[in-house]
Amino acid sequence: MNKALEGVRILDFSHLLQGPLATQMLGDMGADVVKIERAGSGDMFRGMTFFAKWVGGSESPNFLAWNRNKRSIAFNLKSRKVHAIIMEMAKSADVVVQNFRPGVLAKLGYGYDDFKAVNPRIIYCSGSGYGEEGPYVDRPGQDMLIQGLAGVVANTGRGDQAPVPAGAGLADQIGAMNMVYGILSALFWREKTGKGQKIEVNLLAGMLAHLNQEYVAVLNLGEDFVRPNSGIGHPGMQAPFGIYETADKGYVSIAMSPFKTLYTVLEAPQLAPYDDLETLFSKRDEVFDKVNAETRKFGTADLLARLLAADIWCAEVKDIRRAAQDPQVTHMGMITSYDHPRGGNVKVVAPAVRMSETPARIERPAPLVGQHGREILAEFGFSSAEIAALEAAGDMTVDEA
Amino acid sequence: MNKALEGVRILDFSHLLQGPLATQMLGDMGADVVKIERAGSGDMFRGMTFFAKWVGGSESPNFLAWNRNKRSIAFNLKSRKVHAIIMEMAKSADVVVQNFRPGVLAKLGYGYDDFKAVNPRIIYCSGSGYGEEGPYVDRPGQDMLIQGLAGVVANTGRGDQAPVPAGAGLADQIGAMNMVYGILSALFWREKTGKGQKIEVNLLAGMLAHLNQEYVAVLNLGEDFVRPNSGIGHPGMQAPFGIYETADKGYVSIAMSPFKTLYTVLEAPQLAPYDDLETLFSKRDEVFDKVNAETRKFGTADLLARLLAADIWCAEVKDIRRAAQDPQVTHMGMITSYDHPRGGNVKVVAPAVRMSETPARIERPAPLVGQHGREILAEFGFSSAEIAALEAAGDMTVDEA
Repeated sequence: MNKALEGVRILDFSHLLQGPLATQMLGDMGADVVKIERAGSGDMFRGMTFFAKWVGGSESPNFLAWNRNKRSIAFNLKSRKVHAIIMEMAKSADVVVQNFRPGVLAKLGYGYDDFKAVNPRIIYCSGSGYGEEGPYVDRPGQDMLIQGLAGVVANTGRGDQAPVPAGAGLADQIGAMNMVYGILSALFWREKTGKGQKIEVNLLAGMLAHLNQEYVAVLNLGEDFVRPNSGIGHPGMQAPFGIYETADKGYVSIAMSPFKTLYTVLEAPQLAPYDDLETLFSKRDEVFDKVNAETRKFGTADLLARLLAADIWCAEVKDIRRAAQDPQVTHMGMITSYDHPRGGNVKVVAPAVRMSETPARIERPAPLVGQHGREILAEFGFSSAEIAALEAAGDMTVDEA
Repeated sequence: MNKALEGVRILDFSHLLQGPLATQMLGDMGADVVKIERAGSGDMFRGMTFFAKWVGGSESPNFLAWNRNKRSIAFNLKSRKVHAIIMEMAKSADVVVQNFRPGVLAKLGYGYDDFKAVNPRIIYCSGSGYGEEGPYVDRPGQDMLIQGLAGVVANTGRGDQAPVPAGAGLADQIGAMNMVYGILSALFWREKTGKGQKIEVNLLAGMLAHLNQEYVAVLNLGEDFVRPNSGIGHPGMQAPFGIYETADKGYVSIAMSPFKTLYTVLEAPQLAPYDDLETLFSKRDEVFDKVNAETRKFGTADLLARLLAADIWCAEVKDIRRAAQDPQVTHMGMITSYDHPRGGNVKVVAPAVRMSETPARIERPAPLVGQHGREILAEFGFSSAEIAALEAAGDMTVDEA
C-alpha cells in the first residue's frame, strides 16, 4: 500500500509528549522514525502513568499512546563514539526532532549547525515550552502550566470558585501538531529547492495561536472574559451554550441554537422573554438555571431525541469508557489495538485522518528501550563487531522482548 | 522572502472554524487561498461574536481570527454559471477544502469526483463533525459537543459538581490541524507520484486521537477517571498537580514535581508523610487542601520565585489580557496587528511556528465578503464583460471597502 511519507527518515531525540506525538503522526503516514533514547532507562514518559498502575504490570499508558510506528535505539549521548555514529546516520536522514530544554542538545553536539554541517538538506525541528530565548527560556514548560499562562485555565470552571484546567493535555498536542505543520511545510519546500532549515515550535506560542479568537475578542472589544457561575460553557458565550443535567443523572451539552426552538422543544414557553442576544448574555446564569430545571424533567435518551429532531446542536456527555463504545466511534473503528511484547494486546485510538490513496496505519507497537538498535545500525552499514563494541562499552543498550 | 507553500493554490469552501483555521495556517506558509463564500452574507462566522459586541462596530472577532492571508470571492453556488467558472478555476488549483455537512457540497456538484474529473491531481479535503457516514452523519458537529462526547467534559471540573467544558475551542482547532497534516502529507506524496487524493477529517476522531493517553489508560488499566473534589488538575493525576491560590488572590499552577522539594520550599515539613505515589493519588484532595493552605501564605510573585528557584514545575495563571502582556509573550512578538478596512487596527495572535528559511507571515487582513472577486476572476482569465454579467445576475457579490 502507498505511504504518503515513504522514504522520509527521521532521527527523533524527543521525549514526553510534544515531540513523540509529532513523530508518531509522521510515522503513521509512513516516515521511518528512529527514536533515539537514553541508554538504559529511555524516554522519561516510560516512568509516568495514571492511577499509579501500569499496562501489563510495567508499561506506561502515556508512552504506549505516543510511540507506535517507531523503532528505538538507546544511546549514551555523551559518548564521542556515539556522536560519530549519529552524524554518520544524519547524512542520509531528512529530519531531526528534539524537545530537550533549549541548548541542552546543542551542548552535546547535536544542534542544528552540527547536523547542517554534515547534511545541508536536513530539517531540524526543536520543541520547547517557551521558545529558545527570552525571560522564561530556562523555565520548565508543561501542558497545564501553559494552559494557565495562556488563559485557558482562567476561562474554565465556575466564576465563584477557583478556575480549573481542561482535564486533558492540550498544549502538548497542539505543540506536536505545530511540529508536524512546520516539518511537512519544510519538506514540501525542500522538494522544490533542495534546501533544509531550522524550525522552532513552542507550547506557549502554539497555545496562544489556538486561542486567537479569544485574544482578538479581549484585545479589541475592551471586555474581559468572566467565568459564569452556572454551567455556561464559555465565559464569552450567551445561554444556552453549556452542559445540562437530565432526569437519569446524565448530562447533555447544548451549543448555539435558536433559543425559541429550544424552549419550544422543552415545552417551556415561559422562557420566551429571554429570547434576545443581549438578554441571553447578560442573564445567562439565570437562563441556564431555568433551562436546566427543564432538561432535568427528561431522560437523557428522550431529551437527545427531541432536541436532535429539532436540529438543536446537542450531544450526550460521555466518559472515556462509554465514549469508546459510542456507536459513531465504533462505526469509525477509532478504537483498535496492537500487540506489545510486555503490555499484551493494548487498546489504542486509531489514526484520525483518512486518506484515500495513502492511508495512515499502525504497523508497529511502541518499542522497548533500544529494541531495534542492532538492526538500525546494521542498516546504516555498521559491522557486527562495531555494534558489539558499543554495547560492551555501555554506549548502547538493547532491551529485547 | 521565501514561502514554504509558494505556488500552492487552494479553493476554500470552508466556514466557521475547522476549515478556515486550516487554510489560514496554509496561507501563513505562503499558499494562495481563495475563500469561496456565500454571495451576500458570506461565512456564517461573520455573524458570531463574544460579549454581543463587534470589532469596529461590525466585524466578528471569530472571523477576524481565522481568515487572514486569504482573498474572498462570493458566489451563488447554486448557479450553473458559477459551477462552470469554479470548475475552470479547479484546473489550475492544487487543493480544495470544505466543511459543509456531509453530502451538501457534492449535491451542488462540488464533490471530490467532480473536481477529480477536471483535475486528477487535485487534493480534496473534507472536514465534518462525525465523519461522512455512520449513525451520527446527519447530526450537528460543534466544538463543545465533541468535547462532551469524547470525554474532555467528563474529565474537567470538580467531582461534586456537574462537569464543565474547557472554556476555549479545542476540537475545532485540532480538526484544523488534522486537515493541515493530511493536506501537507498529500502534497508531499503528490510531488513524488503526481497523484491527488481525498482526505477526510472529522472533529470526533481528532478529539479521540488527541486523548489517546487517556483512552489507553482507561481501556487497559481497568480504571475510570473520577474528577477530584479539589483543584487537582486532571482526574488521573496525583497531588500536587493542580491550581493553587496565593495570598493576593492570584493562582499558580503546579505540575508534576518532586513532592519533597515542594513541601521544603513551602516550609511545610508536616506534609512529608504523604510523600509516596500511592498516597499522593489516593489522598490527593486532602493533600491539595493542605498544600493550598500553604501557598495562600505567599504572594504570587514571591511564591513563583521560590518555586522556580527549586525548579518546581510551575507558572502563574493569567487571564487573556494579562497573558497578552506577559514578558515572554511580548518577547516572542506573539501579539501583533493588521489593518482591516472596517475593524481598524486589529490586534491578533501571530503565527506560532518559526521557520528559519520560510518564515510564516501575515500579509493580508481577513477579507470582506467577495472583496477580491473581480481580481481573482481576472487572474483566471475571465473578461470584464463576463465578470460584470455574473454580478448583474447576482451570482457574484463584491463588498469593497
